[in-house]
Amino acid sequence: MERTFQLILGYDGTAYAGWQVQLNQRTIQGELERAVEELVGVRVPIVGSGRTDAGVHALAQSASLDLNRWRDDAASLGRALNTKLPVDISVLRSEEVPFGFHALRDATGKRYRYQIQIGGVRDPFEYRYLWHVHGALNVESMCDAASYLLGTHDFACFQATGSERKTTVRTIRDLALTKGEGRGGQGRLTIEVEADGFLYNMVRNIVGSLVEVGRGNYSPEWMLKLVEGRDRNQAGPTAPPQGLFLIRVDYPPSPKSLQSTII
Amino acid sequence: MERTFQLILGYDGTAYAGWQVQLNQRTIQGELERAVEELVGVRVPIVGSGRTDAGVHALAQSASLDLNRWRDDAASLGRALNTKLPVDISVLRSEEVPFGFHALRDATGKRYRYQIQIGGVRDPFEYRYLWHVHGALNVESMCDAASYLLGTHDFACFQATGSERKTTVRTIRDLALTKGEGRGGQGRLTIEVEADGFLYNMVRNIVGSLVEVGRGNYSPEWMLKLVEGRDRNQAGPTAPPQGLFLIRVDYPPSPKSLQSTII
Repeated sequence: MERTFQLILGYDGTAYAGWQVQLNQRTIQGELERAVEELVGVRVPIVGSGRTDAGVHALAQSASLDLNRWRDDAASLGRALNTKLPVDISVLRSEEVPFGFHALRDATGKRYRYQIQIGGVRDPFEYRYLWHVHGALNVESMCDAASYLLGTHDFACFQATGSERKTTVRTIRDLALTKGEGRGGQGRLTIEVEADGFLYNMVRNIVGSLVEVGRGNYSPEWMLKLVEGRDRNQAGPTAPPQGLFLIRVDYPPSPKSLQSTII
Repeated sequence: MERTFQLILGYDGTAYAGWQVQLNQRTIQGELERAVEELVGVRVPIVGSGRTDAGVHALAQSASLDLNRWRDDAASLGRALNTKLPVDISVLRSEEVPFGFHALRDATGKRYRYQIQIGGVRDPFEYRYLWHVHGALNVESMCDAASYLLGTHDFACFQATGSERKTTVRTIRDLALTKGEGRGGQGRLTIEVEADGFLYNMVRNIVGSLVEVGRGNYSPEWMLKLVEGRDRNQAGPTAPPQGLFLIRVDYPPSPKSLQSTII
């Protein structure tokens, strides 16, 4: 009998060429498909909620797979996969879900976190997980600029050139900037963005543009013009990948209880 | 004019064969001496407050060096060294101190932290900084066992075999166990030990023995017998290096104000 499982994954993206399988490259999806094949003897496609780029991390990526060769429960599948996976990829949770659940098509939203270190000395433990910006950032201006992005807009200006999506309209549900402190008292800025979906490189392009405002190169109102102009060439540079974490993927409420209602 | 500088260093020990210079090995001291040589043109010995082993980390190691070729202030020395050091070693603070200050001889105490994960799934970001212990630990028993180690004792039972020190008597000033939670809700146990000095492998041997008590293999009172027996072969196994951090080195109060008093 074919069954569908959802895996919640954490990974340190430093050593990987991103999520998606590529020839002659180590990828997260590739490591997972290899691990599943070692367990059940056949190659099975693993569907991710979306691709993460080379060097991007996940605290809770969501993936799904259909298996007809697994005779045990979902928790055992997760534990067994962890024994086959490299140390920088972990199955954090494993659940059996209604047959046909699809981690990409069924996703209704995602939340990302981007970590910036403002000035100060390089942290020898955190440099893989931060964009280290030298000089000061005016966080108040950045918050003002961010407010123009909330809601439903055409975000073509933040889409990586060369990518083609049917529509570049997305709804940003939350965009929060939080100041903090690193272990050594260095300034930290955390930017969290939640939307119904993201264009390719959208978070990193938003962050790169917000930092331009924080540096005083543009006024907060520039952000409004950017969105209206729909021109990628006007936006700020793409922020580097190592500061970015996929932290949550949302699905319609409780598919399992839905199914038990149907039954 | 010869001047003495103190450096406070943070490093991720994962990629290094420990502090001390060794032939054909990457070491923290080796990287520092190379960086100083690149700056001032001659090889100058760097004195550490003590050696850390391969894989052991530091949030605040202390080191000293004498320089007669540095014309600028201490902060500039620190910044210049950071441009020459690998990303996983940072000068966090740099100060000019009374001439002749010696990071090893003048140290009056040290504090170490050891991080344990109790059970749960491997954390893909923290595995380099934890000892992952499977199964449960009775932390109350471990606290009882730890209480026998406080104060001045002959700690020969925790000295690595083969090392020779004049005396194996040390004073443990603080030994604190703190339960916490990892990002994914995994159980965490942090053990901090402060003493006037440490024997080779002493912290890791104490931690290894405390974990034996936590696992229920020995009673807390076994710790008392261990210390009285002075026999390394009776103690628990040495805990792995990656959970250990040197977090503070103490010196007599304010050598600088002392000097200004003398002047």
